Amino acid sequence: MPLSAEVPAHALACVYEGVGLPIKLDDKHPVTQPQDLKQGEVLVKLEYTGVCHTDLHIWKGDTPFPVPMPLVGGHEGAGHVVAIGEGTDTALSVGQAVGVKWIADTCSTCSYCMNGADQHCAKAGVSGMLQDGTFAQYMVAAARYVTPIPDGIPLELAAPVLCAGVTTWSALKRTNAKPGDWLAISGASGGLGHLAVQYALAIGLRVVAIDGGDDKRKLCEGYGVDHFVDFRDYKSGAELIDAVKAICDGIGPHAALVCATGGNAYGQAIEFLRARGTLAAVALAANTKIEAEVFSFIGKGLTVAGSYVGSRQDAIEALSFVARGKVRPNVQVEALKDVQSVLERMDRGQISGRIVLKCH
Amino acid sequence: MPLSAEVPAHALACVYEGVGLPIKLDDKHPVTQPQDLKQGEVLVKLEYTGVCHTDLHIWKGDTPFPVPMPLVGGHEGAGHVVAIGEGTDTALSVGQAVGVKWIADTCSTCSYCMNGADQHCAKAGVSGMLQDGTFAQYMVAAARYVTPIPDGIPLELAAPVLCAGVTTWSALKRTNAKPGDWLAISGASGGLGHLAVQYALAIGLRVVAIDGGDDKRKLCEGYGVDHFVDFRDYKSGAELIDAVKAICDGIGPHAALVCATGGNAYGQAIEFLRARGTLAAVALAANTKIEAEVFSFIGKGLTVAGSYVGSRQDAIEALSFVARGKVRPNVQVEALKDVQSVLERMDRGQISGRIVLKCH
Amino acid sequence: MPLSAEVPAHALACVYEGVGLPIKLDDKHPVTQPQDLKQGEVLVKLEYTGVCHTDLHIWKGDTPFPVPMPLVGGHEGAGHVVAIGEGTDTALSVGQAVGVKWIADTCSTCSYCMNGADQHCAKAGVSGMLQDGTFAQYMVAAARYVTPIPDGIPLELAAPVLCAGVTTWSALKRTNAKPGDWLAISGASGGLGHLAVQYALAIGLRVVAIDGGDDKRKLCEGYGVDHFVDFRDYKSGAELIDAVKAICDGIGPHAALVCATGGNAYGQAIEFLRARGTLAAVALAANTKIEAEVFSFIGKGLTVAGSYVGSRQDAIEALSFVARGKVRPNVQVEALKDVQSVLERMDRGQISGRIVLKCH
Amino acid sequence: MPLSAEVPAHALACVYEGVGLPIKLDDKHPVTQPQDLKQGEVLVKLEYTGVCHTDLHIWKGDTPFPVPMPLVGGHEGAGHVVAIGEGTDTALSVGQAVGVKWIADTCSTCSYCMNGADQHCAKAGVSGMLQDGTFAQYMVAAARYVTPIPDGIPLELAAPVLCAGVTTWSALKRTNAKPGDWLAISGASGGLGHLAVQYALAIGLRVVAIDGGDDKRKLCEGYGVDHFVDFRDYKSGAELIDAVKAICDGIGPHAALVCATGGNAYGQAIEFLRARGTLAAVALAANTKIEAEVFSFIGKGLTVAGSYVGSRQDAIEALSFVARGKVRPNVQVEALKDVQSVLERMDRGQISGRIVLKCH
Repeated sequence: MPLSAEVPAHALACVYEGVGLPIKLDDKHPVTQPQDLKQGEVLVKLEYTGVCHTDLHIWKGDTPFPVPMPLVGGHEGAGHVVAIGEGTDTALSVGQAVGVKWIADTCSTCSYCMNGADQHCAKAGVSGMLQDGTFAQYMVAAARYVTPIPDGIPLELAAPVLCAGVTTWSALKRTNAKPGDWLAISGASGGLGHLAVQYALAIGLRVVAIDGGDDKRKLCEGYGVDHFVDFRDYKSGAELIDAVKAICDGIGPHAALVCATGGNAYGQAIEFLRARGTLAAVALAANTKIEAEVFSFIGKGLTVAGSYVGSRQDAIEALSFVARGKVRPNVQVEALKDVQSVLERMDRGQISGRIVLKCH
Repeated sequence: MPLSAEVPAHALACVYEGVGLPIKLDDKHPVTQPQDLKQGEVLVKLEYTGVCHTDLHIWKGDTPFPVPMPLVGGHEGAGHVVAIGEGTDTALSVGQAVGVKWIADTCSTCSYCMNGADQHCAKAGVSGMLQDGTFAQYMVAAARYVTPIPDGIPLELAAPVLCAGVTTWSALKRTNAKPGDWLAISGASGGLGHLAVQYALAIGLRVVAIDGGDDKRKLCEGYGVDHFVDFRDYKSGAELIDAVKAICDGIGPHAALVCATGGNAYGQAIEFLRARGTLAAVALAANTKIEAEVFSFIGKGLTVAGSYVGSRQDAIEALSFVARGKVRPNVQVEALKDVQSVLERMDRGQISGRIVLKCH
Repeated sequence: MPLSAEVPAHALACVYEGVGLPIKLDDKHPVTQPQDLKQGEVLVKLEYTGVCHTDLHIWKGDTPFPVPMPLVGGHEGAGHVVAIGEGTDTALSVGQAVGVKWIADTCSTCSYCMNGADQHCAKAGVSGMLQDGTFAQYMVAAARYVTPIPDGIPLELAAPVLCAGVTTWSALKRTNAKPGDWLAISGASGGLGHLAVQYALAIGLRVVAIDGGDDKRKLCEGYGVDHFVDFRDYKSGAELIDAVKAICDGIGPHAALVCATGGNAYGQAIEFLRARGTLAAVALAANTKIEAEVFSFIGKGLTVAGSYVGSRQDAIEALSFVARGKVRPNVQVEALKDVQSVLERMDRGQISGRIVLKCH
Repeated sequence: MPLSAEVPAHALACVYEGVGLPIKLDDKHPVTQPQDLKQGEVLVKLEYTGVCHTDLHIWKGDTPFPVPMPLVGGHEGAGHVVAIGEGTDTALSVGQAVGVKWIADTCSTCSYCMNGADQHCAKAGVSGMLQDGTFAQYMVAAARYVTPIPDGIPLELAAPVLCAGVTTWSALKRTNAKPGDWLAISGASGGLGHLAVQYALAIGLRVVAIDGGDDKRKLCEGYGVDHFVDFRDYKSGAELIDAVKAICDGIGPHAALVCATGGNAYGQAIEFLRARGTLAAVALAANTKIEAEVFSFIGKGLTVAGSYVGSRQDAIEALSFVARGKVRPNVQVEALKDVQSVLERMDRGQISGRIVLKCH
């Protein structure tokens, strides 16, 4: 096994120089050379990187604490290992396709890391936020934390799976929905939702997709959902709730996955769930609360579970469904140098589907 | 097996005649005679009945919907089977000690009944609220739903287990806490809390008991809790939260069981839980919400689970711990005829511990 | 709701008069009249009944204990409720399609019945073995134990689901295989196996189907299995084991479902499973043992789980997959009067697929 | 944090020079110096090491494959970190008490390592068998795999927990026994059994301890088992089986933990378990099989689970119970230089309880 391929001294990286400042397209950004990698590190030549709403928040400074800048943004990257730090104990080899995730590395020895919940490691690094990320042609990553990408997945499809895919797949598991159970997905056609729908169908759930508009109906029905509920068809939240209940044996779904925050999606889900149902929460929005009135929450014995990205294992599983053709992210490819334009259009709400940037 | 023992024609029953009206001590209340029992019914001679805060709510009319009156109240009763309806398919025998619970009967064939969550059956009867309850010397109950009481439990101890015990034991299971995990219990010395503490210790959890005052500290420490946190010792909720975290490996407990609603117990528990922790909610209070801000709730991957009384299986298990001497409810015995006085003192906050009424 | 439809005084029933004796086609068999039904009973007009290998064992006397005869055999029946015993507390109505299973009734109050494992109730009745079964035009059944058949399932397809379907679905759950896991199914094209394959694929498992011959390959590949392993292609069990391991990441499947007893299927499964894998056992054969050498069994941390028919809940779920078009039993229809001929051909190994008898 | 304390150039190590040859007490054994440690390694000054039956097997050559010699044996060691390899990313500090286990290190990135089953990692090192172990005063160990020992555990008690304790605690979890369930433990007073008894009681199980003789009865009853069954009191295995069933509700225990191989302990456990019961297998013996006849195994829906040592998490948990005073291994201390004498006495069956060797 060669420890490295040829690596240029400089390459393109997109650098946030300050909150909201123009993103610098630095094509003379230094590339860490193979001999400078530390034990445990790999150098990744990125081929594609997704652009996530969180990237926009970070660039604009909408974060709970200041993000250190200058910073290379981005956190869902797919590329190839081009060098491995000397002495690194790893099953990776040069040339192997790997993915970089929101979580960049963890300690590997805490109870979270040892038990399949490593995303909650207190020492977790975060790509494109606490350390340089994937809006670049090359990056250094932790050998133990990158995710091998199975053969046969085009890397432009792998990229968004490493964040959106992992997040929805992990959240789906948090619902504890069992095959044959009814699952309602709010925001079913969005960046998270359209993946959640596909994962849910792939494991035998019955899906009620909730979203608004005929294009979204067409998308969801194309995936084979059992019912599409267009929220525009209902005069009130109460009517929508009744409709969802009626579809699901008259008593509501066993589980709900909330991928949208608009229109009181959390509150409605708590109301339409059947007794002992579970709501998995993934949709983030500023100043949003999940609220439950105790009498009915306890009386129905409901569960609400927050789900935060996913574990290394979740990432492997999420990619596996794509490799097997069961799930296919809906992506549009642009060039890495257009990252600022993409973020600006995202800020104006002009992006539909997932944008993936080609790095070379 | 004799199908019945001697049964009087009339006996004492305590009847709510209307919301807040004086409770009628009807000592000529008709007793259903053995030959009038339907198939599936048993006649229970009650020996003791607990008095629960919910009984007060019902009497005073603090319920989400009007309760049909006249009504015999009460829902945690312990007594003996004195007659079995002809044709009843049951393992019960005359003379056997049994308990009556909040849930009076369920359909036995819905998915909840078939799978250990029968308290959520849509056809559940409710003792002392939707049908006559345990504030009486005799009552008719469903053979399939009464709980056999193991030998060796004094019936005055069994009575409160049938509601408070079942509720805390079931909620403890909803926390998913595993042996050795840290569990914080709010309201640890109360009617629910003091049982939760004992159940938790009996299954190998490490318990942080939260309550206020030296008597309560003494009670909890007597049970062997790992730490008692007196909320009076802290100037703010934030300080209390930090103290609980510090005790539990510096990152907070794995689980929280909220048996009190005062002082923002729900909100504090959500804050002091460690990542992936679970909050089980049992404490009810009017106009109370469980609220979680989505960023931290999702970031920490928390779970909130409502827990409503318990199943038939939970009741059997809850009594088993008492039979084995691992759990002992803290009770004071008064006479059945004093039920109104007990409810009035409860309304004035003058009751500490659980009152159990002797029926004969 | 009418409590009954018109019911004849006599109808056809197929009666075992003694071990191995000719089966009597009794077309004057008395039909229990609606007014003679006990509380808790329903009268079912059977439309179709499956014929299972166990029926052959019972007729021939290959049972661990003597079976009481005369006896109406059969235990997987689909028909309609035509009468309900007076006073019966049930959600069933006259005209409703229902299924009769191997387990005829259980106590509904033991820990197995309360917790989703009712097939293990110590008081379970057994259709076509301990009490009259489904080889008849009419039969009495327990209201609480028959399984409602969803609209849209042809009853000739429902019949075999009530035994073979329930058995394989329940066993699949016993494997604890998670979506994306590898599952090896031995005897994949047989009466149990072809259903196991379909259920496994419907819940997102990756299936290695093991069986012998091109017809069987074609059947399994038609269902969409990931790999078909023809045991005839291997010179030894060791080679077959290596082949299965190689397919499944080089380390073997996460789970195995053994639906065949020939060729040391149990022993091979224990050898090809990966560490921490689970074998679910359903295939029965006289004088067969499951054997595991302790060093490798413990070193690999394997699990072997026996799976016995299924619960009421399992039956509802098993039918639901058929109603949704995800699973379709492979059946051939003959007439009820030909039951003896079917059993004789089964005994000679001349039956492929599942025979279903039309009752009217 | 200092990276190292003072370390001698040579120290005592006990070296197997060949199968069955006298064990060399090499007091000039070179000690790896702090500056020679690789990244990821720590140097441990051992204080105590347990002696396990497996050590005897290795010395005598009773292993499935040849063990490379010369070799320092031993695999349950407790000591202090005295140096940390430069560049090591670890939460350990010099001076910290740590334990060395049978599993010496694993890859940390396979599905087993990521999900709490790291003992099954295909790349696992094995202390005292595949690499030098704990029969020494100093040893090199993997920073990521040693187990921190909580304050307050005497290291002579910690040592046996790192193998026998982990093994029984992990196996207990594999039984899936829930609080209040009946657990039968075969070989209850032995090196594994006496720990299993204590762990089981600490988590609220009801324990039937099976062993032979009054001393063993006294030991088990001292721990507080619910019942002690002396196998010498029964004329046959069938009588013993009936006795265990009778104790456990007449239908047998929910789970069995077999810590002994004599007297057909595995076969008896399969027979006395109740329907849906689980047998966890830990006891190893040459040429021993676990055998189950399929009809009754399937009919009862039993589970047999092999349990192999334990995970890093299991080790942390196992020590925690000892730190909290819930479990106390029964040990006798001898000197490290007497290791050969201890193994010889073990070979002659003259050891009762666990021998722990003092290293300095």
